[in-house]
Amino acid sequence: MITCLAGGVGAARLLVGMQEAYDRDEINVIVNTGDDTEMFGLTICPDIDTIIYTLSGNSNAKTGWGLKDETWNVLERLDQLGGSTWFSLGDKDLATHLFRTELLTQGQTLSQVTQLLASRFGLKVKILPMSDDRVRTLLRVDPFEVQKQLGENFSTFLKGDYISFQEYFVRLKHSIAIKSVRFDGAQMARPAPGVLGTLKHSSTIVICPSNPIVSIGPILAISPIVDILKANRHKTVAISPIVNGTALKGPADRMMIELGHEPSVVGVARIYREYCDTLIIDNSDRRYISQVEELGIRCLATDTIMSSLDKSVELCNYLLKNAITE
Amino acid sequence: MITCLAGGVGAARLLVGMQEAYDRDEINVIVNTGDDTEMFGLTICPDIDTIIYTLSGNSNAKTGWGLKDETWNVLERLDQLGGSTWFSLGDKDLATHLFRTELLTQGQTLSQVTQLLASRFGLKVKILPMSDDRVRTLLRVDPFEVQKQLGENFSTFLKGDYISFQEYFVRLKHSIAIKSVRFDGAQMARPAPGVLGTLKHSSTIVICPSNPIVSIGPILAISPIVDILKANRHKTVAISPIVNGTALKGPADRMMIELGHEPSVVGVARIYREYCDTLIIDNSDRRYISQVEELGIRCLATDTIMSSLDKSVELCNYLLKNAITE
Repeated sequence: MITCLAGGVGAARLLVGMQEAYDRDEINVIVNTGDDTEMFGLTICPDIDTIIYTLSGNSNAKTGWGLKDETWNVLERLDQLGGSTWFSLGDKDLATHLFRTELLTQGQTLSQVTQLLASRFGLKVKILPMSDDRVRTLLRVDPFEVQKQLGENFSTFLKGDYISFQEYFVRLKHSIAIKSVRFDGAQMARPAPGVLGTLKHSSTIVICPSNPIVSIGPILAISPIVDILKANRHKTVAISPIVNGTALKGPADRMMIELGHEPSVVGVARIYREYCDTLIIDNSDRRYISQVEELGIRCLATDTIMSSLDKSVELCNYLLKNAITE
Repeated sequence: MITCLAGGVGAARLLVGMQEAYDRDEINVIVNTGDDTEMFGLTICPDIDTIIYTLSGNSNAKTGWGLKDETWNVLERLDQLGGSTWFSLGDKDLATHLFRTELLTQGQTLSQVTQLLASRFGLKVKILPMSDDRVRTLLRVDPFEVQKQLGENFSTFLKGDYISFQEYFVRLKHSIAIKSVRFDGAQMARPAPGVLGTLKHSSTIVICPSNPIVSIGPILAISPIVDILKANRHKTVAISPIVNGTALKGPADRMMIELGHEPSVVGVARIYREYCDTLIIDNSDRRYISQVEELGIRCLATDTIMSSLDKSVELCNYLLKNAITE
């Protein structure tokens, strides 16, 4: 059994290979829920959905988010009504959010709903939210920067100087600098049922190539998870989401700089050093191997750019062959 | 200025004529919100929506509810996921609920959101929810009857022996007998801003031909509204929703029988006698005129069956000519 810590798109690219490379029934994925948001009264879990959509072959390859063969009837109408449309909700995607919200309203936990949703999408891989408790990633920004971009919507937007992850990522297209990150609720959040057990009993723990700050960060903000990870450092391997100084997708590199990290595999290694025995980096970063190893992390270089399913499977095979030390 | 008390479809049929027969800017409509429901986390106001959709020319003439030119992409997908689909949500209709719920979540009142929504649909008639506070119509039923119809869904369905109006009306297709009605929250509910003022200052108050029990009943369960109505009985005229012993639409006749009322214009007159100076009945009910007048209500007979817009306008002209006594 292996367990993967995952954010959204980067993780999904790895996991879609992993379910070819490894027994699907034996893969557990612990997913970040700090990105979750409530919009229009609906509970939206972008990372969980990205992973379920991708692993079930339903993701939209063109956009990189949402479902394939999507339609936009509701959003078009909402736009006509003058409603808020910065968060693009497709019709099929909306059905996911309605399904989830209805069951949550009836008292089911996020774990239970996620399990059910994954099974309805035909997944064998087990998807676990990191917690059933509410954790929200908040980013501290310069309010004047926000005002400059959003104008009069400003007043309904800020919580102090903090904005939600979706506001930062989708509404502001991660175009402004962040000053700090807070994982609201993480201190009190309990790991979802199964999370600690699967970390303990897996032969390998994989930290997917997701944004270390806002995708893996929220998972690492939950103390009981951190304790288990530290105790199981010997079997944990991370794949660097930073290749040659840049994030393949999203603002991970810029966020790292803004928060004082080095935007390189060395910076990634520093963030993960307490949790990781091994860091897999891209061949183009070979020059950093000694610097990473000086931090006490085994460093392996291979081709980590998953431009196709085959590449992803190759990377997973490499990981499984080289990282499992038992 | 006139003020109309309204439920859903029956009221909408009258009001669509009223906005032809009377100055639109001078028509205020106080709408039942006891039918409102929360589904999938969304706040749904069936009566408000029916009236806005109908008065703006957007209602679906075939179904009698929802919007014209509707599509069903979300619901079809929700059905594939195994979600709950007994409440038929069209894509365009969903946009209304998303729009409303988002603004309510941001702290706007139901009155404010309703005003905005009505203006986005181009209405001049003013639509007022009866209250911004939560009132919910609950119907006491025989749990075994519900179980017989819904089988295993039973356990998530009942609140004691009470079911919500939408569960009764839509999910069970009003096919089971009711034992009593309760308007949860009505005792504490305050009339929405403008409601008492418009009742006081209107030259005529019209009780639309809506279900007296569950459409007008919730409005009559709010004490300050009742007090104003009683004080203005002299200018209030009702149109009977019961014609020749049956409801033209919906279960009003059966509900009246089940709750011990006579299913006739006389039964309607008894329910409204404290609030109404005049009851307009259909020509086919002329035989009841003396019985109604014995209750101290002026009784006028005309053609009340609104099979077309022209018929509706005619009825409104008749009402305005005969009912305004000033």
